[in-house]
Amino acid sequence: MPQVYLDNSATTRVCPAAAQKAMELMTDVYGNPSSLHTMGFRAEQEVTAARKAVAGLMGAQPEQITFTSGGTEANNLAVFGAVTAHAREGRHIVTTAVEHASVAAAVDQLEQQGYEVTRLTPDENGLIDAPAIVSACRPDTVLVAVMLVNNETGARFPLEEAVAGIRKTCPKAHVHCDAVQAAGKLPLYAERWGFDSMTVSAHKIHGPKGVGALYLRRGSRLIPRTYGGKQEGGLRPGTEAAPLIAAFGAAVAELPPPHRQMPHYAALRQHLLDRLGDHPGIRFHLPKFGVPYIVHLSVPGYKSETLLHFLAQREIYVSSGSACSKGAQSPVLTALGLPAAEIDSALRVSLCRENTQEDMDRFVDGLFEAMTQLASRKEQRYG
Amino acid sequence: MPQVYLDNSATTRVCPAAAQKAMELMTDVYGNPSSLHTMGFRAEQEVTAARKAVAGLMGAQPEQITFTSGGTEANNLAVFGAVTAHAREGRHIVTTAVEHASVAAAVDQLEQQGYEVTRLTPDENGLIDAPAIVSACRPDTVLVAVMLVNNETGARFPLEEAVAGIRKTCPKAHVHCDAVQAAGKLPLYAERWGFDSMTVSAHKIHGPKGVGALYLRRGSRLIPRTYGGKQEGGLRPGTEAAPLIAAFGAAVAELPPPHRQMPHYAALRQHLLDRLGDHPGIRFHLPKFGVPYIVHLSVPGYKSETLLHFLAQREIYVSSGSACSKGAQSPVLTALGLPAAEIDSALRVSLCRENTQEDMDRFVDGLFEAMTQLASRKEQRYG
Repeated sequence: MPQVYLDNSATTRVCPAAAQKAMELMTDVYGNPSSLHTMGFRAEQEVTAARKAVAGLMGAQPEQITFTSGGTEANNLAVFGAVTAHAREGRHIVTTAVEHASVAAAVDQLEQQGYEVTRLTPDENGLIDAPAIVSACRPDTVLVAVMLVNNETGARFPLEEAVAGIRKTCPKAHVHCDAVQAAGKLPLYAERWGFDSMTVSAHKIHGPKGVGALYLRRGSRLIPRTYGGKQEGGLRPGTEAAPLIAAFGAAVAELPPPHRQMPHYAALRQHLLDRLGDHPGIRFHLPKFGVPYIVHLSVPGYKSETLLHFLAQREIYVSSGSACSKGAQSPVLTALGLPAAEIDSALRVSLCRENTQEDMDRFVDGLFEAMTQLASRKEQRYG
Repeated sequence: MPQVYLDNSATTRVCPAAAQKAMELMTDVYGNPSSLHTMGFRAEQEVTAARKAVAGLMGAQPEQITFTSGGTEANNLAVFGAVTAHAREGRHIVTTAVEHASVAAAVDQLEQQGYEVTRLTPDENGLIDAPAIVSACRPDTVLVAVMLVNNETGARFPLEEAVAGIRKTCPKAHVHCDAVQAAGKLPLYAERWGFDSMTVSAHKIHGPKGVGALYLRRGSRLIPRTYGGKQEGGLRPGTEAAPLIAAFGAAVAELPPPHRQMPHYAALRQHLLDRLGDHPGIRFHLPKFGVPYIVHLSVPGYKSETLLHFLAQREIYVSSGSACSKGAQSPVLTALGLPAAEIDSALRVSLCRENTQEDMDRFVDGLFEAMTQLASRKEQRYG
């Protein structure tokens, strides 16, 4: 029976074109892009082509793209780099209570160093709207860091609608957007939206793990976090991971346009809701304006990890939340104010363009089987 | 005519076993190692196996290994992480004037922040010996950062012989070793040598670009540079680049033992010296106790870049120095006090286990051809 992989928000399978490109650069065009000879030049050309592709993905110009080792490094570079660049202008940060750990933990670190942090919490619809972001800003705000799509609930936060308001209150504040869970599925317009910086990661869009990109607006300034060679304009030194970067570009080239993907996800989600929505034992957490490719639900009375392992034995892969928190209770769900029974039994189904209605059925059947078998085991034990 | 790649200190070709392993983890075992299901677990097992292999390479225990995005990140983590951890104990750093940019620029940055830096310069034999390192130490020294093998000249600096002396003067100082140009070719004993930390990089040993490792001694402390998930014990968060890490492990497994490689490099170097050593137009810079796999020479009167391109047209690839400085005048050669004519005409020939005597001959023939043709062009122009 084929695998049903529904954990695409954790990571995706590298698409054949991207894997092939990585292979080519590992074994054939293997020069150091910074080497002055032809072997280096050929690798550099591949990096240049990928930069153009990733810029296209982000709605940006190639010279605005810095390749990093992934989303975490890009988010850290933006958060620390921005507050250090703006050290003289203030020490207030606006963010949300549901950011990915690579923004949240970086901001926590700054808080320990004396920064004041305002953390916005989603409302009863799972939303953080633009007026909420703007009204949290102050003249001494130096950083506004809000994700575009939440990695656990799929809520879409309209940071782009807040930019004009932010600029009025704190014109110099750095506006950073973690777009890791949006990239490849929603259209991105980093430049038009007026963000100072924006993060994407290759391995969430069928590119390889180990490479991400940071958009930086013309005129926006970040203090580097890493010192060394002159690669990536000095903002991110170290031998360019050319095979990964080129594969990232190849993965971008394979992406169907968002408007062609969305109906597919919407149909799969609807199918899931049709089959599960009325079940009294299952609670869906569907934020208003949430993306259709992340579906978050709870099965109170069953532990997430138990369900997850039961499904995995049947080659059905979902998650309990962010892979980065590995089993720890989700701070996102806690921030949403869900009851403990729903937090402990949460499951995230996250889709990619290759998932099918059959995958949804396999998941639903597996879940029903789990609820029956795990319940009857419980009865046997305590009965 | 086959390529003659003699720029192995810049980067190497990924060996077939490592490339195959990366491919397998990109397209088959593609789970997130931090995911709780079987797909994640299989990827985690690959990371565990690689950690064991890399620990073996470094002379360390698996739990002492932290995977990073490469040598630059590992060196930065050690340099900044150590001085931050030792912030209360002093602000003096001992290093060399010929470190790789990823140590040198990090130390420069600390100097700007008020740290006092002692930079040791190689003697007339290209050497920095253990007594020189020890006598530079002071009670307020918090970091000693000395590379094991210089990336341009191949000089071997005996940091391990200095450790006992360092501990006497400044028992708490963090001793860091950049072993990037030694790994895979010289035996490494990070733990036995008593280093606090040590850096290696996969792409210098026929593994992929984008992954390196930092050894950290039990009890030695570093403050992280990156904040996010709990990966790598929290010292280096971010989704583990499992395909790269596993490929790193596979590349290590393919390495012949150092004692089997050394005679090969020694013979190739000797062949080069036999054919070129007496030529009045060529100067070798061979440090005493230098490694045989890096051969550094100058051809006064010819510009490095011109020679390099001439050779590259014949599919012979060497470098003028560190790829990371990309054309800028080498600070290493300047520190050695070489005459400008020799700095401007420097070539680095760096070997790997696959190079042959025929490669040496192609290089020598190409160099003679360059000297004749470029000289005659010069005559035509000015004659």
